[in-house]
Amino acid sequence: MLLVLTPGEALGLIKEKFHPLKRREQVSLAHAVGRVLAEDITASEYVPGFDRSTVDGYALRAEDCFGCSESIPALLSLSRSVAMGEDAGAPLETDCCVYVPTGAALPSGANAVAMVEYCEDFGDNTIGITKSVAPGENLIFKGDDVYPGKVVLPAGRMLSAKDIGSLAAMGKTNVSVITKPLVGIISTGDELVPADETPSEGQVRDINSLMLAALIEQFGGKAKLYGIVRDEEAILEEVLEKALGECDCALISGGSSVGTKDATGRIIERRGELLFHGIAMKPGKPTILGVSGGKPIFGLPGHPGAAWFVSQIFVRAAMDALFGRESRPLTLRAILTESVSANHGRAQYGGASLALRDGIWYATPIRSKSGLISSLCSADGFFCIPRDSEGCAAGDEIELILYNTYQEV
Amino acid sequence: MLLVLTPGEALGLIKEKFHPLKRREQVSLAHAVGRVLAEDITASEYVPGFDRSTVDGYALRAEDCFGCSESIPALLSLSRSVAMGEDAGAPLETDCCVYVPTGAALPSGANAVAMVEYCEDFGDNTIGITKSVAPGENLIFKGDDVYPGKVVLPAGRMLSAKDIGSLAAMGKTNVSVITKPLVGIISTGDELVPADETPSEGQVRDINSLMLAALIEQFGGKAKLYGIVRDEEAILEEVLEKALGECDCALISGGSSVGTKDATGRIIERRGELLFHGIAMKPGKPTILGVSGGKPIFGLPGHPGAAWFVSQIFVRAAMDALFGRESRPLTLRAILTESVSANHGRAQYGGASLALRDGIWYATPIRSKSGLISSLCSADGFFCIPRDSEGCAAGDEIELILYNTYQEV
Repeated sequence: MLLVLTPGEALGLIKEKFHPLKRREQVSLAHAVGRVLAEDITASEYVPGFDRSTVDGYALRAEDCFGCSESIPALLSLSRSVAMGEDAGAPLETDCCVYVPTGAALPSGANAVAMVEYCEDFGDNTIGITKSVAPGENLIFKGDDVYPGKVVLPAGRMLSAKDIGSLAAMGKTNVSVITKPLVGIISTGDELVPADETPSEGQVRDINSLMLAALIEQFGGKAKLYGIVRDEEAILEEVLEKALGECDCALISGGSSVGTKDATGRIIERRGELLFHGIAMKPGKPTILGVSGGKPIFGLPGHPGAAWFVSQIFVRAAMDALFGRESRPLTLRAILTESVSANHGRAQYGGASLALRDGIWYATPIRSKSGLISSLCSADGFFCIPRDSEGCAAGDEIELILYNTYQEV
Repeated sequence: MLLVLTPGEALGLIKEKFHPLKRREQVSLAHAVGRVLAEDITASEYVPGFDRSTVDGYALRAEDCFGCSESIPALLSLSRSVAMGEDAGAPLETDCCVYVPTGAALPSGANAVAMVEYCEDFGDNTIGITKSVAPGENLIFKGDDVYPGKVVLPAGRMLSAKDIGSLAAMGKTNVSVITKPLVGIISTGDELVPADETPSEGQVRDINSLMLAALIEQFGGKAKLYGIVRDEEAILEEVLEKALGECDCALISGGSSVGTKDATGRIIERRGELLFHGIAMKPGKPTILGVSGGKPIFGLPGHPGAAWFVSQIFVRAAMDALFGRESRPLTLRAILTESVSANHGRAQYGGASLALRDGIWYATPIRSKSGLISSLCSADGFFCIPRDSEGCAAGDEIELILYNTYQEV
């Protein structure tokens, strides 16, 4: 049985099979950035709660100064001033104006503000307006920002700094967020030693555990490491069972040998459902996905470059599903500086670094083998050479998919 | 005295006047994502530490099978297998091959690996190679990833997940990072009440404190809130003095009235140097920057939309200087869906939301007054209408500067 899907089919299946987690918690705004909303945020009041000046000037009825000019100013009586933070007081009297600093409340009846720059104080409480204003000019109306019932932020939203500002404006200083999905990370391979040990000849350090944990954190989740597991089906099954008992998702990386891949597939089939057993892309072909009790189980390539790349796309998509959010990476067009060949019969992805010259982005492909990780550090994103193409030439315009840059849709 | 700079001049001055902080700390890789390196990371060993196969196959001398084919396979003696994680053992004997799984070490003398798919086991320890391989094919050489002395990551680098992978590969499980700059945040304005209180008529909630704190966190710093300060010069000076004593940078937002702006300028002049007193842009004109004991002091607009926008550009740049990093926002080209007018005599910036249709990005301008914050939530970035332009028309291609998306340069 060999279920090899296209990248698009794999993403569709992830979206279909996994659903938002139900666990939620309350957090204060001071700790809410990067957290994901568990429910829609609906305004329960007007922001601002009153008509508010956006300039220093005189609140008035626009109609009272239509047609005025420097030579024939409209003359209004200054009845009083409104100070910052004060109630605007009584309604505006006929043929009168009220001084308001920027941000102050307008008295009812006023529908515009004339900027001080276009007013003249004649003394004796008479103000000359030398430039007419339209109704609504130089003010923010009550509820211009939000009004009761408006859905300001949707469930599934990962909160950014401006969202925090918006929540503060509404007085929502505690919000309900989805508890961070806990992701269990297992590295397999007899050649692996922990990253803080010195490998002997033939051994390499376990890169994926720490790297995938950092990625999960960037996606908004929380990682739990289960260490390095030897290439033995029974041991792997035991560790995976423990991880599935404690976590919302499990990532098994490594086992690049055919035997271990098969073992991962067999274990998934025993505990749940194997969704696919390969993706028609390079790197990333030996990627497995299964589900057990609604929890995603990924079998990721052991090569760190490939594991990282696949996680950017598919593990991110699974996290989106667990959060109930939809996101897509941002892309930009860039000119390729070197040619890249491809003829593997599957979509080929490669990293590239960006440089800006005369307002145009140039992308230089990263020449890297999938076992390498350091060379990827300089990549700003990746691009795809389609399956039916023999490659891209220097000077071609490519669409670069940016790393760690997602738009919620 | 009125020092109004262009945005470019202001950025240049920030880069010139502020320098990297000296305080540093050691963190383990598990807590290093988003932290900023205090020193260059130089490799002290080879990664990988040995020549390594990238396929399941037979390690051999490429020269021994040049010219072979399916009909005339090259015949080699299988001397042994190398298991994962094992030392490769003795050098490769003449006319021999050694079985290696993906990731295993190659014996010295071997310079290529023939994939099992192109080999035939004739039994009797004879392997037929049916497709020649070039020297270096299907393997990673010792040090291909990094070698002693190579600077893998520079000081000032904000660590991403792939950087964590690279550090793990080198066994650098503890790294020296710059202690997070502590940024003191002060909100001024008699109209402000804390975000968790209900404002009376004429009052509004303090949005900037929490929003700026979230932004500082996104930039890699740590925020300390000094609350709301009344519009009084003596009180403001006292609070600012406290903040400068405890923090590496201070942000004063609000004081949109002319009097308070002047007060902020006077206080800065008494305690240090006023660098500029305005930026020729909209929004953001009433932005002040000073320096005291090497610490940046910003006077930001009180309008949350404007404060947020200015912080994205100029506070971010000051944080870059304190970290000793250089970064620039990523940009992409998009088609404007609606026309936007401008004729303010200064560069005008506006937010826009992106939509992807048929592979082309379309940007819809956000119609927002600078006092509003919620409408900005849907913005993916912002664009600039230059000073000498009357606006942009629907269908124009604009360059959208993406939010929270920086390239380190």
